Amino acid sequence: MKMLQLDAEYMEYELVKPESKIYEKSDKKSERVENALVLLVSIEDSDNSDIVGKAAAEAVEFAQKQKIKDIVAYPFAHLSDRLADPNKALELIVKLRKDLEHDGLKVHSAPFGWNKKWDIKIKGHPLAEQSRSYGAATAQQQKRPRKVDLSIVKKSEWTGLPERDHRSIGESLDLYSFQEVSPSMVYWHPNGRIIYQQLIEFMRGMERLYDYKEISTPALANIALWHVSGHIDYYKDNMFIIDDGSSEFGLKPMNCPSTILIYKSRRWSYKELPFRTAIFDKLYRREVSGALSGLFRVQELTQDDGHIFVSAEGVEKEITLLLELVKRVYGVFGLKYYAKLSTMPDEHLGDEELWDKATESIKRALETNGMKYEIKEKEGAFYGPKIDFDIEDSQGRLWQCATIQLDYQLPKRFGIVYTGEDGKEHTPVIIHRAILGSIERFVGILVEHYQGKLPLWLSPVQARVISISEENNSYAESVFEKIKLEGIRAEMDGSDHTLEYKIRSAQMQKIPYIVVIGNREREKGSISVRMRSGKQENGIKLEPLLESIKKEISARTAAE
Amino acid sequence: MKMLQLDAEYMEYELVKPESKIYEKSDKKSERVENALVLLVSIEDSDNSDIVGKAAAEAVEFAQKQKIKDIVAYPFAHLSDRLADPNKALELIVKLRKDLEHDGLKVHSAPFGWNKKWDIKIKGHPLAEQSRSYGAATAQQQKRPRKVDLSIVKKSEWTGLPERDHRSIGESLDLYSFQEVSPSMVYWHPNGRIIYQQLIEFMRGMERLYDYKEISTPALANIALWHVSGHIDYYKDNMFIIDDGSSEFGLKPMNCPSTILIYKSRRWSYKELPFRTAIFDKLYRREVSGALSGLFRVQELTQDDGHIFVSAEGVEKEITLLLELVKRVYGVFGLKYYAKLSTMPDEHLGDEELWDKATESIKRALETNGMKYEIKEKEGAFYGPKIDFDIEDSQGRLWQCATIQLDYQLPKRFGIVYTGEDGKEHTPVIIHRAILGSIERFVGILVEHYQGKLPLWLSPVQARVISISEENNSYAESVFEKIKLEGIRAEMDGSDHTLEYKIRSAQMQKIPYIVVIGNREREKGSISVRMRSGKQENGIKLEPLLESIKKEISARTAAE
Repeated sequence: MKMLQLDAEYMEYELVKPESKIYEKSDKKSERVENALVLLVSIEDSDNSDIVGKAAAEAVEFAQKQKIKDIVAYPFAHLSDRLADPNKALELIVKLRKDLEHDGLKVHSAPFGWNKKWDIKIKGHPLAEQSRSYGAATAQQQKRPRKVDLSIVKKSEWTGLPERDHRSIGESLDLYSFQEVSPSMVYWHPNGRIIYQQLIEFMRGMERLYDYKEISTPALANIALWHVSGHIDYYKDNMFIIDDGSSEFGLKPMNCPSTILIYKSRRWSYKELPFRTAIFDKLYRREVSGALSGLFRVQELTQDDGHIFVSAEGVEKEITLLLELVKRVYGVFGLKYYAKLSTMPDEHLGDEELWDKATESIKRALETNGMKYEIKEKEGAFYGPKIDFDIEDSQGRLWQCATIQLDYQLPKRFGIVYTGEDGKEHTPVIIHRAILGSIERFVGILVEHYQGKLPLWLSPVQARVISISEENNSYAESVFEKIKLEGIRAEMDGSDHTLEYKIRSAQMQKIPYIVVIGNREREKGSISVRMRSGKQENGIKLEPLLESIKKEISARTAAE
Repeated sequence: MKMLQLDAEYMEYELVKPESKIYEKSDKKSERVENALVLLVSIEDSDNSDIVGKAAAEAVEFAQKQKIKDIVAYPFAHLSDRLADPNKALELIVKLRKDLEHDGLKVHSAPFGWNKKWDIKIKGHPLAEQSRSYGAATAQQQKRPRKVDLSIVKKSEWTGLPERDHRSIGESLDLYSFQEVSPSMVYWHPNGRIIYQQLIEFMRGMERLYDYKEISTPALANIALWHVSGHIDYYKDNMFIIDDGSSEFGLKPMNCPSTILIYKSRRWSYKELPFRTAIFDKLYRREVSGALSGLFRVQELTQDDGHIFVSAEGVEKEITLLLELVKRVYGVFGLKYYAKLSTMPDEHLGDEELWDKATESIKRALETNGMKYEIKEKEGAFYGPKIDFDIEDSQGRLWQCATIQLDYQLPKRFGIVYTGEDGKEHTPVIIHRAILGSIERFVGILVEHYQGKLPLWLSPVQARVISISEENNSYAESVFEKIKLEGIRAEMDGSDHTLEYKIRSAQMQKIPYIVVIGNREREKGSISVRMRSGKQENGIKLEPLLESIKKEISARTAAE
């Protein structure tokens, strides 16, 4: 909001004619106010009622100090080039008038949306003319730190978090942190990075079974790309924009447009479809103050994203395969899930017959997979029907994760084609799909679901070797080396703390296997092991344990 | 420059008193102009005489059309929050008055730098009030493409590239593309992504041997971070900056500052050092029109980056281990390399004794590893000495890739410490290091070095099965499945092209193993194989071939 505040001997206006479709009716054709504080006001696109409230409060304060009794709120569109649309502007002007009303003040309302003749005489004192900016523009001036300020370079602290919260658990297991300088973005510490990376490797393995091809595209693209895709129209406020002087670039909030560019870089035959792409690039989405949600709402995220280019005839088979993939993936985590089919909304593109056919295909695919589902009438995207999946965690909460969306529109916007068996050009369908959804969020869900006791294959440290006393350190080291050689993530604790302390510390870290080495073990060439479940075995051989650990890892068994 | 152009019945002003040190002397104390075009003018910091000239020309044109004879140039500081300093503003106001002078127009000059009483009566027609922006602000409005423009959504085309260039090879092997919307950034197609990913997995494996911990940090950080690190002072022009309304964020051009935040998030004991971190995040560096260099100069890049936090006493051992790592890594590619030691520059931070000690440590480490090196006198970074490595490709060209840099300054700027054996706080040294350097550039170097015939472990497709004719397809399929089951990247060509065509096409793709299946092979349950080297073996068993392929992959043998 931009405001020119003028201390006037008088102000007079006369309505000439409405200047646009949206204007305020007014009985009064003209008005003259003596000794008025005149506020010429431009409402901007990013304004809201808080901003207006702040502006009003300052104007009232000035009027009261200067002992001015009359305020004229005068809509004036010439102070900004980022004007709000007229409906919003009028609404906020009305709000402004209300906020200006205070004891002893009279608010005069020049009607909105008119060409007016007007006449003003401004007093000549130093405070008689003042310009004010509120909202985005004001903030801009304040935002550059002028000197080195270490205070912002620190970890985000949350207070009063329950112990069950993934942020508390993440801190005690040293998985990740959030830092003031990167609001709602994750700093992955070594332990957390392992979980993140294991999830991606897991999905890579699954996707190899279905012949996906992994690709990667730049985070930055000229916003021209988002004009073609249409994202600019409904997603721009959620995008980070870089103004490079000569061009504007957007940080990608979605992978689809740039994936399409790869498809578009060569010709395709029907024999090459379906073309299944997988992509694990970082995405960037501006969120309004999501600073408090930890991993559940981040501004930089990674999806196990994928786009399938397929002929219209191939859609049903693809959906069937995708549902099978969903079952396999969620089965590994032992998570309950619920399918929801969203059908054609009132506002949609494409003809209804196509929608019906697509929706029927999806239903058949759901039935083929024996999946129960709920129908969300008219909740599909405007470009096609979709299936979403909610998963239920150990605390009974539902999280929307997987999504499978048919898209008949983007292929047209980008003009992509393939040559059919008939030798002619056809437009493929794109299926957008993600199974885990946001990897960041999925880690948060798992950490809370398992309360830190992650399944072995996801545990950052799978085994810790504890040497009871120094004379056993060298034997313990040799055990530790053998464990590592098998590709098991292990640590060695040869410190001089007490055994109790060392075991307790490993338990606090939720380490699945604690291998204890004392005199007895050293003398017999054996080991003892304490499992996270509480089970304990003394004086056993290392090798069979290693085999069983390796089996447990590759089976991706859920946590005990 | 911001200008409010008002078509007024009259305009009258009266000087009250100068409002700042810089003001125009004036004999006239007041003035009244009838039927005037009043220009309220704010001069902004980025304005110049061209911008003023343009504004004047448009105002004159309007006055002439509306048959207005009198123009009032009225300095008015309230239209912008990016005002020029008063000296510049006055100079450009004077320029404006001159530019407004045209036949038949009278220019009235309201003096600069005064508090004035003023009075204006504005006509009520639709063009009576107009706001104008010139300069930076105007440019901003013009750069947004207003409608969908598919023309920019296309592959970058280079003309006249030699066949040996990695861009030509990359296109014919379908490895990557460059797109107009993302200048100097890589779109990794499935084949290229495999090379990229294999290199990273290779480095991960190497780094596991040296007990590195992988981390990951956000691409975005408040520029406060870059003030602390000092990058803002010498690197800002190379950074992409996002203006988020309330804050400025930089896309990270380097991983060091955010890596330090992870270190800084908890306390450290000397027992935990060295802490060796590895990071493969994307980095962003603005390059002036590097659009023509393909992979050799990109604006989005990935380093096999790492930072080691180590005590001053531990530096020499770390350097020794790092040099060993360099030898192992480059040995795999059979690349010649040359070490260069850069010593203390004239402008440096830290005392000279420390520099001497550090430089001597590096020399000893080089000698321990039996590495010859050249000394680059005074070419070290201001924060510490460094070793760089040039590698030589098959065409005799040198490329700087690995770098090992000691840094005694960043730890101080961030105030990071560890608790020493003495119980006191000490400042660690940071060693910045990358072995391959930019993965993107390294792929470009390898593609040119091997002219597309990548070593087997890096080849996107390691084997292709060709069925000579349809009746052999099913046996060929079974061979293909067996190959894939061994984790070998394979393709199947069961098309109805001629055998010659299919073989030629596989050779063009530089596929290392071409497995040919005809009647003879089918009948005998054997296979025939053509290797990229030209070697051919007919009627052999599949299993021994698979064993030898797997051995070749895991040995990472250089390409024949």
